[in-house]
Amino acid sequence: MDLFGRDLIVTQEWTLDELKATLELAAEMKRERFHPRFTKTLEHKTFFMFFYNPSVRTRQSFECAATELGGHAQFLQPEGMRLKTATTAGETIEDAAKVMSRYAVGIGIRILEDKVPSYGAGNELLREYARWADIPIINMADDRFHPCQGLADIMGWAEWFGGGPGRPDYEKLHGRNFLLTWASGALARSWCSVQEALIIASRFGMNVTVARPEGYDLDPQVYAWTQANCEANGAAFRTTSDPDGGYEGAHVVYSRNWVTPQAYQDGEFKKAAEQQKSASYSGWTTNAARMARTDNGIFTHPMPVDRGLEVTDEVASGPRSAIYDIAENRLHVQKAVMALTMGKI
Amino acid sequence: MDLFGRDLIVTQEWTLDELKATLELAAEMKRERFHPRFTKTLEHKTFFMFFYNPSVRTRQSFECAATELGGHAQFLQPEGMRLKTATTAGETIEDAAKVMSRYAVGIGIRILEDKVPSYGAGNELLREYARWADIPIINMADDRFHPCQGLADIMGWAEWFGGGPGRPDYEKLHGRNFLLTWASGALARSWCSVQEALIIASRFGMNVTVARPEGYDLDPQVYAWTQANCEANGAAFRTTSDPDGGYEGAHVVYSRNWVTPQAYQDGEFKKAAEQQKSASYSGWTTNAARMARTDNGIFTHPMPVDRGLEVTDEVASGPRSAIYDIAENRLHVQKAVMALTMGKI
Amino acid sequence: MDLFGRDLIVTQEWTLDELKATLELAAEMKRERFHPRFTKTLEHKTFFMFFYNPSVRTRQSFECAATELGGHAQFLQPEGMRLKTATTAGETIEDAAKVMSRYAVGIGIRILEDKVPSYGAGNELLREYARWADIPIINMADDRFHPCQGLADIMGWAEWFGGGPGRPDYEKLHGRNFLLTWASGALARSWCSVQEALIIASRFGMNVTVARPEGYDLDPQVYAWTQANCEANGAAFRTTSDPDGGYEGAHVVYSRNWVTPQAYQDGEFKKAAEQQKSASYSGWTTNAARMARTDNGIFTHPMPVDRGLEVTDEVASGPRSAIYDIAENRLHVQKAVMALTMGKI
Repeated sequence: MDLFGRDLIVTQEWTLDELKATLELAAEMKRERFHPRFTKTLEHKTFFMFFYNPSVRTRQSFECAATELGGHAQFLQPEGMRLKTATTAGETIEDAAKVMSRYAVGIGIRILEDKVPSYGAGNELLREYARWADIPIINMADDRFHPCQGLADIMGWAEWFGGGPGRPDYEKLHGRNFLLTWASGALARSWCSVQEALIIASRFGMNVTVARPEGYDLDPQVYAWTQANCEANGAAFRTTSDPDGGYEGAHVVYSRNWVTPQAYQDGEFKKAAEQQKSASYSGWTTNAARMARTDNGIFTHPMPVDRGLEVTDEVASGPRSAIYDIAENRLHVQKAVMALTMGKI
Repeated sequence: MDLFGRDLIVTQEWTLDELKATLELAAEMKRERFHPRFTKTLEHKTFFMFFYNPSVRTRQSFECAATELGGHAQFLQPEGMRLKTATTAGETIEDAAKVMSRYAVGIGIRILEDKVPSYGAGNELLREYARWADIPIINMADDRFHPCQGLADIMGWAEWFGGGPGRPDYEKLHGRNFLLTWASGALARSWCSVQEALIIASRFGMNVTVARPEGYDLDPQVYAWTQANCEANGAAFRTTSDPDGGYEGAHVVYSRNWVTPQAYQDGEFKKAAEQQKSASYSGWTTNAARMARTDNGIFTHPMPVDRGLEVTDEVASGPRSAIYDIAENRLHVQKAVMALTMGKI
Repeated sequence: MDLFGRDLIVTQEWTLDELKATLELAAEMKRERFHPRFTKTLEHKTFFMFFYNPSVRTRQSFECAATELGGHAQFLQPEGMRLKTATTAGETIEDAAKVMSRYAVGIGIRILEDKVPSYGAGNELLREYARWADIPIINMADDRFHPCQGLADIMGWAEWFGGGPGRPDYEKLHGRNFLLTWASGALARSWCSVQEALIIASRFGMNVTVARPEGYDLDPQVYAWTQANCEANGAAFRTTSDPDGGYEGAHVVYSRNWVTPQAYQDGEFKKAAEQQKSASYSGWTTNAARMARTDNGIFTHPMPVDRGLEVTDEVASGPRSAIYDIAENRLHVQKAVMALTMGKI
């Protein structure tokens, strides 16, 4: 299997074998973090990170990943890049991508929320870069997908139900119940993380339940992929608008706020309107009582956590919270992705 | 002595032996700057730098220090971090610190002046990070303390009265006279550097004089520590409001502008009011005539220097100015601190 | 020949032998990009990059160059540096440069367009840094010159007429015809790149034609140097205001928008006025018909390209466009400059 040169835009576009090979390498890297086999992989090489939107975890973990592979991640913000836009003269993506391909071994891009005019435009921008670049484009979260979060999630769940940190067992996820539940919250979040979670959970054989208020459905394409993945694995996919219903028998509970399909209007991300809509729903917080109804389930979240709204402190900081392990896994899966697509390993 | 894992918030919280071991390593690193013993210390490791406030020296010297130890310093600005604040939703320090502990070997934080609502709040923020992080928190200047500046200062003075660059002799400081004098200036400076200077000068056995206009006293806790340190060393601590008095017999003269204890009002740093107050005092500039009254004293300053107001060009650029040597020492002491608290050395 | 410690402000201030030695090393570095002879040159060393103005190519290529030489480039923006200016208190360049000389092996500076109050002030700032710093100052583009662009240009042309990528033959440029033509465009560009092109083309023996509307002449000093260089090589230098005339027999066509000598007024860069003036000229776009009149000429541009105005897509993306090769050369020539002036090689 040769992943050298491959883009990673969404996990659904990689085969299950490719994903498993990547996750296996990530676990190896977690067990032997600074082993010389890994620390020369990107030696003296540059990885460009384009942050159209700021980020906590993504910036820290990608820059750290490049450093641990012996390379260097350049932190770039497009406002400093004089790129051509609908309203300003500047450089085309064709030119930018072709030149960057001469300097670096890969390009990560993050663009979502208020930095895109309509749902899907961020993902299209990534595909435009991928069209022109001779080096891999890695999705660091766009308005549709967040593949590195999805890989970190599935690795974390498989560690929990497998042999613990660094010892994931993906077979153990087969047939388990995954609940993705909408949650109250003030952050008006994009769909990328939760959509990637649906895709990857269904890909690895889990039964999937989405619980959300009416009007909070996600991308039909993602639902279709999830449905198809579930069918291929003999698993079930269902949705519910009951804030309690999905907890029964769940093994993995993922609660998070997200916006409605009407978040983009007139070329803008209507954050305030979405915050207001979100605030009109109550009773959508994951708490200990609800977790007690699961089948000894774990709590998962891509962070940052909006504590008190998305989940209570008791659950988020409790003994069955996987959030820090999964945040750590961002580093390991990204190292594996970078090593396989950009390095010699 | 094992300093691995230790926070550095203020030098007063480290033992004298710990400080001396650190300074000894710093001098070794200055003499053999790129020796292989040092350049692998943080190899492939990440140090996070959080700059709530911008900085010249601190940014340059910390990032440089990480590079020279074989590692990498990530430059992070909290505005890009979606942290929870009094008024905005976001991530708690608990969550931020716990995740960063998975990625990096240490965290440096700088927060002072207009980025804190009241005196001491910056220092409390550092202690909150230290409470949750599993890795060392290094104070890169808060509203109370600046330990790396203090270490660079004392090293520079001990080089001067000892064997020159890279050959400090701390015994030679015992019983010498240290003058910290308030100075005119337009920069409305925080107390961190001058307070750390009082603490460390008294810790190493110097007699301490603080000269300042009435109303410009510093933190009572710092005065108390200085007094106690002086007593333990059989040295004297005094204050004066005479702009000339302290120069007599001084060996080290440190002149710098600083704000009054009323700088914070209604949750804000009243910079303009402080600048105005400061401007009402004249005759508080270190000049050649005053230096002539010292006991062949040296001039010291943490930079940036507000030339013409804090000190004349003649003195700042003169043959007995230690400012550039001390600025250089920032690099060496920070390398030593990072190596001892975060590395294998 | 020893270039260690040398500033690079404009290529005219280096001897032809020095330039050729640098270009030869750059070609070697292009052929064997990650050879161990090169990857230790700046090991554990810091290069400061000061960006008064943002940049695409320059930031990426300099940071990448430092990484490939084993070192690290710090990205600094002066707004974070509390420097003294005409209107604000802060640190003098003397102090800043002297301290930076203690931390790093070199300093790159970029300052042009709206960041300078009058033509030449940016270049003077660089020379002020060079006056005080003990380490090389590298011009990363100021309001007059852009030496690294000039070196990348001449290398790219010599590759084209020589042995291809990594095999430049500078003798082959002797007596060839270089056309620099003003072009329509909305970016109100500084003179640095085009002036450096005139200087270096004439230095290497090319005949030089500048085509521009009346009123768009460049720096008289640059014209004088170009004239003198041409005379020394038995080549011709002429100007024309005919948008078509210069193409006849040209071997290298360089089209770019630039501002008039009146761009700075009352201490400001009058961008809008310049854009308006520029828009009043039409027929100044390089296209296929014009290229057909050349002697099988190549198209060159320092990028970012303002496609459709400066040049048509057909030419910019055509088989005789050297733009991406030249952009790549920025990396190689900068590595060579840094290795020779700051490293051990």
